[in-house]
Amino acid sequence: MATVNRQITLASRPVGLPKVSDFQLAYSSLPAPSPGEVLVRSVYLSLDPQLRERLGGKETEENSEPAGAVALGEVLPSDAVAYVVRSEDPALREGDAVEGMLGWQEYAVAPARELRKIDASLAPISTALGVLGLPGLTAYFGLLEVAALQPGETVLVSGAAGAVGMLAGQIAKIAGCRVVGVVGSDSNVRWLMTELGFDAVFNYKATRDYPGKLEQLCPEGIDVFFDNVGGPVSDAAICCINERARIAVCAQDSQYNLEEPQLGPRWLGHLIAKQARVEGFRVASFAARFPQALEQLTRWLKTGQLKYFEDVAQGIEATPQAFIGLLQGKMQGKPLVQLATGGTY
Amino acid sequence: MATVNRQITLASRPVGLPKVSDFQLAYSSLPAPSPGEVLVRSVYLSLDPQLRERLGGKETEENSEPAGAVALGEVLPSDAVAYVVRSEDPALREGDAVEGMLGWQEYAVAPARELRKIDASLAPISTALGVLGLPGLTAYFGLLEVAALQPGETVLVSGAAGAVGMLAGQIAKIAGCRVVGVVGSDSNVRWLMTELGFDAVFNYKATRDYPGKLEQLCPEGIDVFFDNVGGPVSDAAICCINERARIAVCAQDSQYNLEEPQLGPRWLGHLIAKQARVEGFRVASFAARFPQALEQLTRWLKTGQLKYFEDVAQGIEATPQAFIGLLQGKMQGKPLVQLATGGTY
Repeated sequence: MATVNRQITLASRPVGLPKVSDFQLAYSSLPAPSPGEVLVRSVYLSLDPQLRERLGGKETEENSEPAGAVALGEVLPSDAVAYVVRSEDPALREGDAVEGMLGWQEYAVAPARELRKIDASLAPISTALGVLGLPGLTAYFGLLEVAALQPGETVLVSGAAGAVGMLAGQIAKIAGCRVVGVVGSDSNVRWLMTELGFDAVFNYKATRDYPGKLEQLCPEGIDVFFDNVGGPVSDAAICCINERARIAVCAQDSQYNLEEPQLGPRWLGHLIAKQARVEGFRVASFAARFPQALEQLTRWLKTGQLKYFEDVAQGIEATPQAFIGLLQGKMQGKPLVQLATGGTY
Repeated sequence: MATVNRQITLASRPVGLPKVSDFQLAYSSLPAPSPGEVLVRSVYLSLDPQLRERLGGKETEENSEPAGAVALGEVLPSDAVAYVVRSEDPALREGDAVEGMLGWQEYAVAPARELRKIDASLAPISTALGVLGLPGLTAYFGLLEVAALQPGETVLVSGAAGAVGMLAGQIAKIAGCRVVGVVGSDSNVRWLMTELGFDAVFNYKATRDYPGKLEQLCPEGIDVFFDNVGGPVSDAAICCINERARIAVCAQDSQYNLEEPQLGPRWLGHLIAKQARVEGFRVASFAARFPQALEQLTRWLKTGQLKYFEDVAQGIEATPQAFIGLLQGKMQGKPLVQLATGGTY
């Protein structure tokens, strides 16, 4: 076991798209767990675009830190899967695989009760950060509960090549819907059409006529819009909704790097005309029902109805650049950083 | 009985705020009812700001007519209460009071099945256009069903002095909520505070700092926002919502006269942070439950828990000017035009 812990901390508040120099590689000694805690070695870190919101640096915040901001010098927060190295809690043993908010670092100490034990025999442990983790649960509850998806409906997914979007599209297909995706590259168009069974996909960077494109690809209108991106694509999608449409707002990736908030058209009147509903959600509110949902997701994974893809960077040093690539839309599949190989703790 | 029917028709598509010259007083002979129809004489017309949307004339429509547009030369549509003058349907008799979409005219022929028979012994028949009609039902279902109002919550009502808003505020008080209103004049502030029991009211024309005003008047945040107006007040209200807030979008009165659509801040990300819901609704979707709701509204009216106020113009000729005044926010209470006195048909 190493005696030094390598961590990535926030060096400065990024303006717009973060730069590598906004982050710093820091060294610390290995922490020791207190009673009720465990020391873990992380194997995979999850990269999530929403983290950008917590880095601050926007003009509109008048130099104050946003709510929930990461402090300068603090280790960047993130979900991770890890193996227990030393346990001071009877619920976990050395060698157990766990998932939790462990941060951008190689080792971490955490209360055992804040970690989810993973059954490594079900699937590769990295899936606990994707299809069998928060992205899978977010797609599942967002579509089936928030949007109350019904068979035969037309579902639009923005950010469809992202960690949540690629699962949302597949779950909508399993549920018997027609699924249209919005992505940011032609290669992702091909990928979703050939590998993931989307009915139609378009690259928002290749057109500016979003309403026209949506009318073409959703000739029967949009019943459910699973929004990961926001901005002009969402404005256009809202114009194409059907009566009684539901819009599940999962994330707003297009808005996190903006230095100033964007203006957009006002569409509340359109919600009246369509008797439509827009709901923002966080998956944590469904925590009590995670076990059953994970069982279902695991079944779909085993039957091959649900596929997963990962985009894996190597080594803690690679984390900032991989995160920046994610914000630039360069990833294909669930973005991860691998810090170790299984069992080598 | 008169032999001539006087009607107000659309003479030209208004640009921005309508002018009296956009309307025309027309004369026609009395129509005769066919089997299944009745001839009625209207006693009160209802004036509704949403009619503006159907008059067209906006730049953005590229000179095309909006969906559901009133044609040039057509009688303006509106709800009205009337007495049956001649019936060709066994369901209605001469002298029955009815409510229905009869238009801006003194006499009308309508299918009996499209009219609601009014019990004139319960309350003055004009209430069938207000507290015991669509405005009352809209406030009732919007708050209790769409917004799922709970006792103890803070409720913000925009357009609080309007036909629906003044009832929504009172129903929220009956339901045990703290009620804050937004109106467009100081006299309406005083009126809602002294006559209708609102807990706080502000005049949006007297301040530009809507977020500051809302924070002051809703120190515990907004749980339910019943929106009749839209625009910058709604933008600010959305910033002040609590976790799990519900926004029932009833109307967008501030937007109907605009020649070009307004831009506003994008706030979908805020819906995620607050796990909040925005829903547009039309009261017609609750039609199957109107009878029970009207019974409840009638009980509240009889016990004095619910008060109603009317702003009544006189004579069919006065209708266009009264409608324009309504769009300018000059009315206090449910806006009506009285065409006849009861029984004088």
